[in-house]
Amino acid sequence: MNNPDISAELLSGIANQLRIHSIAATTAAGSGHPTSCCSAADLVAALFFGQMRYDPKNPHYANNDRFILSKGHAAPLLYAAWAENGVVPISELTKLRELGNDLEGHPTPRLPFVDVASGSLGQGLSVGVGMALNARLDKFDYNTYVLLGDGECAEGSVWEAASLAGTYKLNNLVAVIDVNRLGQSQETAFGHHTEVYEKRFQAFGWRTEVIDGHDMEEILEVLAFVGADDKPLAIIAKTTKGHGISFADNKDAWHGKALSKEEAAAAIAELQPKAKSGLGVEIPKPTQVTEPNTQPPASWPAINYKLGDKIATRESYGAGLVRLGEADARIVAMDGDTKNSTYSEKFYKKFPTRFTECFIAEQNLVGVAIGFAAMKKIPFASTFAAFFTRAHDQIRMGAISLANIKLVGSHVGVSIGEDGGSQMALEDLGMMRALPGSIVFYPSDAVCAEKCLEQMAEHKGISYLRTSRPKTPVIYGNDEKFPIGGAKVLKQNAGDKITVVSAGVTLFEALKAADILAKDGITITVIDAYSVKPLAKEVIKAAAQKTNNLVLTVEDHYPEGGLGDTVAGELSADGIKVHKLAVFELPRSGKPDELLAKYGLDATAIVKKVKALV
Amino acid sequence: MNNPDISAELLSGIANQLRIHSIAATTAAGSGHPTSCCSAADLVAALFFGQMRYDPKNPHYANNDRFILSKGHAAPLLYAAWAENGVVPISELTKLRELGNDLEGHPTPRLPFVDVASGSLGQGLSVGVGMALNARLDKFDYNTYVLLGDGECAEGSVWEAASLAGTYKLNNLVAVIDVNRLGQSQETAFGHHTEVYEKRFQAFGWRTEVIDGHDMEEILEVLAFVGADDKPLAIIAKTTKGHGISFADNKDAWHGKALSKEEAAAAIAELQPKAKSGLGVEIPKPTQVTEPNTQPPASWPAINYKLGDKIATRESYGAGLVRLGEADARIVAMDGDTKNSTYSEKFYKKFPTRFTECFIAEQNLVGVAIGFAAMKKIPFASTFAAFFTRAHDQIRMGAISLANIKLVGSHVGVSIGEDGGSQMALEDLGMMRALPGSIVFYPSDAVCAEKCLEQMAEHKGISYLRTSRPKTPVIYGNDEKFPIGGAKVLKQNAGDKITVVSAGVTLFEALKAADILAKDGITITVIDAYSVKPLAKEVIKAAAQKTNNLVLTVEDHYPEGGLGDTVAGELSADGIKVHKLAVFELPRSGKPDELLAKYGLDATAIVKKVKALV
Repeated sequence: MNNPDISAELLSGIANQLRIHSIAATTAAGSGHPTSCCSAADLVAALFFGQMRYDPKNPHYANNDRFILSKGHAAPLLYAAWAENGVVPISELTKLRELGNDLEGHPTPRLPFVDVASGSLGQGLSVGVGMALNARLDKFDYNTYVLLGDGECAEGSVWEAASLAGTYKLNNLVAVIDVNRLGQSQETAFGHHTEVYEKRFQAFGWRTEVIDGHDMEEILEVLAFVGADDKPLAIIAKTTKGHGISFADNKDAWHGKALSKEEAAAAIAELQPKAKSGLGVEIPKPTQVTEPNTQPPASWPAINYKLGDKIATRESYGAGLVRLGEADARIVAMDGDTKNSTYSEKFYKKFPTRFTECFIAEQNLVGVAIGFAAMKKIPFASTFAAFFTRAHDQIRMGAISLANIKLVGSHVGVSIGEDGGSQMALEDLGMMRALPGSIVFYPSDAVCAEKCLEQMAEHKGISYLRTSRPKTPVIYGNDEKFPIGGAKVLKQNAGDKITVVSAGVTLFEALKAADILAKDGITITVIDAYSVKPLAKEVIKAAAQKTNNLVLTVEDHYPEGGLGDTVAGELSADGIKVHKLAVFELPRSGKPDELLAKYGLDATAIVKKVKALV
Repeated sequence: MNNPDISAELLSGIANQLRIHSIAATTAAGSGHPTSCCSAADLVAALFFGQMRYDPKNPHYANNDRFILSKGHAAPLLYAAWAENGVVPISELTKLRELGNDLEGHPTPRLPFVDVASGSLGQGLSVGVGMALNARLDKFDYNTYVLLGDGECAEGSVWEAASLAGTYKLNNLVAVIDVNRLGQSQETAFGHHTEVYEKRFQAFGWRTEVIDGHDMEEILEVLAFVGADDKPLAIIAKTTKGHGISFADNKDAWHGKALSKEEAAAAIAELQPKAKSGLGVEIPKPTQVTEPNTQPPASWPAINYKLGDKIATRESYGAGLVRLGEADARIVAMDGDTKNSTYSEKFYKKFPTRFTECFIAEQNLVGVAIGFAAMKKIPFASTFAAFFTRAHDQIRMGAISLANIKLVGSHVGVSIGEDGGSQMALEDLGMMRALPGSIVFYPSDAVCAEKCLEQMAEHKGISYLRTSRPKTPVIYGNDEKFPIGGAKVLKQNAGDKITVVSAGVTLFEALKAADILAKDGITITVIDAYSVKPLAKEVIKAAAQKTNNLVLTVEDHYPEGGLGDTVAGELSADGIKVHKLAVFELPRSGKPDELLAKYGLDATAIVKKVKALV
């Protein structure tokens, strides 16, 4: 234990005070999970008042020990701890879940002491892995503690994180498993059989300690040996749900239920005599460190492409990441065993210590990125775009966490060719657009891809770069600017019949189509909508209004949620008529060009469609 | 071994023949994964010609042993096995990956002998769990074999499946792990340390056997004891990638590369002397069974709701599933420890043997459903809609598998209230729409929910029901019909100023708004778009054209990919002007009504918006 001045008795008393707050808050709110708080109260009291080294007044301090409440439904317990350590006014606690109050039903970083949102179970350990890796990178001695429920250990993402932590021997990472036996709708698969969790964590490369999670002496004893060997530590704590509330303790059907006022009064009366305040307890200080630079570079190194050179945007992603990484040490990267295809390998080769190989485990890949982002790094996570669907929930929670993560998905659309449908991302634009505040880029050439990368590094928030497998010619000069929310009008003539909006590989088909149509006397406007979100609404609208309000979108994506839906969704209110070319059926294997033709995305298909429309 | 007439020597010869086919096919295609085929060839030969009991001429026979190629990139090996057993003409094999040929880059059920598509790694074992559970339910003695790569064992979904199989003691399930050491971009985390996999599977409740995956005697020896105890069996086979090709065997940088013609010739020359044909080998027969009924019932039991009664659609889901389950024994259900919230608990209580509790592991939940669907059951999988994002990749692969699965997501939108953003599904409509061939329902009342359920049970393919947490009044009569692709015009008057399209809880806000507006002399058309996909395009268009082409959509969903984008995407080409009310920012905790007001989805917001537009 890092706090030699505090007794186990006082910590147990604080735990009961946390229980009282949790009960009072949920009863005031009329909903919540008091019994899930009670099982973990002793563990949390020990961590927050006995073990963790942190500055309560500066929760973002770079060398504070980190705490992640992976079992986010125990939020009132977390808020109670931050009240008893003097940060949250105790009177605020009973405003839990009220509209406008940041003490929400599940924790979010609207609270300064919450690094990441939780509430979708099984995600906290991945974030912890990212934070623990960050400590290694920065050579800081903070430890990362993750509190998990037993029920959430059924989530595969927990084992993805556990495996990587074991592989990289993260002995600065501690998982505390609150084995309270009861899930939401029934007993968990393993009840109080703590040996199941013990065997599993051991098999995944962890040291384990099984304890009575309500015995403060035992808790402190195992915490004294955090980091004692070269493995991450799993503390498997046998607890009872509703501990301290005699009528609910270890009983079925109490999940997610606030106590009635009478029940709460009875429970609090039981707990009060054994409760003690944490206010005034001296929290152990973190080791003082020089905080890492968080200033962006004054400028990025220049790029040097030649017009007409053929380079896949995925390749320019790799080159660009190295370029940015040279200028900004905050940039780190990670991949899921696809680095030779996404080209993140270039960054790995240049900056091996700033790269994390996450193996084939995309949920953890994104969780690790969120962990780095919470420590003020700028993480770029890459894999095949199709496989980001595997981490959709982590990405969703990343958005709720306001996480500054950068996702880069390669191998999109039917233009990947022979590998077939399972490898083709055809829904990624839709998935990434539907994240509050997200930025979605879909570059067509190397220059645009590199410039989008710069925007991503500078922009604070979740952003996505969609890269393509086929080589495409460089069409922009090295000094061209690509702001967030921009678009490029590549062809425009008086008398154009229609505005074709595209991005990525199909943009070149649109340009070819324009040339073909011109020979038949039909001229068209062609726009590169590289910024899918936010969309350059005004640019497209202005162009469309000059072409009789007629727009055709062309995209290597399903028709739902992609570029076509974006343009229609943003512009139909202005009377713009949007027609779509997209992948309207389940695609199959074939050569890239054959597939673009078969699914109606090549120049021929665009010519045909334009002729039918004008 | 089930085939007493075949020798290990012949099986080894067949394995080499499979290697030759795999090399020839990928070289002909110019792409693919020949070395990943070679590592697993002995295992596949032993399974297909020595172990599995199946009728090659009737691959869908209900009691055939099942085989799932979870490492889908070894597709050429699978095709070779189905050629050597006489089903695929050998001359077809070198048409691998050609457009129009069903021998795609990764397996899909376009081939009659493929139950589920693979190619996104780590998903096969969940499907196998579903199939093994189905055998239990039907009291059939088929076994299910799943071939996994070692690299994919990093996917958490593998451990979700492993845990459930261990918990339910599925001794009719066999995982064969092809530990060939090499991933795509580097060595896996554990190389040839087979003891890591051994410990992990044991910790997850499995019996394990570690073997040399190229020693046919050893392979046959462990296969002889499938089902010998009460645990699932993991055969951990140490292999080398590229086995049999001297210049590639166990070497780096050969992943996903076809051999050149010269290399292929050299490799085949090495293998040819040791190769033998499988044609003519007698495949062990499955035990004959009475095939389960696959006929739908003539009709569904009637429903009996009273107009005005207040019932949440999630609750009518539970009631409806029991009603349908009584009429059709093919209906099974599964949940992820939320059955008391989704109301699937009603089905569990009525039909416990037809219900699978999957605990908090949504990827496996969907995989299990896909497994049941492959065996011609009609599985309904439910959880909070937000947590289906966890299984997005499984759902995506389900669509590619043409899987007949039914997904039911509860707790959608800000109207869930106090639990906050992490629990609110606000992207599910977008996610589910972007699945080729999917059906997406969003009912507003109990009658509609129950009738949509009937449609889902009758329709073959992936479909989604979005249920809501708040109670809503019954507005439809018990005999009302709700076809796929329909919509209900609830209010329409001559002189309406705008068409409001909504569904779910906000439909009632639209109806209230209509009443308020009517008092100010503004009448509006109100449409219930319960079928979000396919959308009742013509119904909405006809209504809109009577209201000056003006449409307002209202939905408890993010603005991207949901009802508004759907209506705009489908109708903007017709000149319909679509305005949207949706959740335009990251929501927070609060009471349901407060949140509907705060995010501009209640009657007041609709009134205000309509007045601004007309």
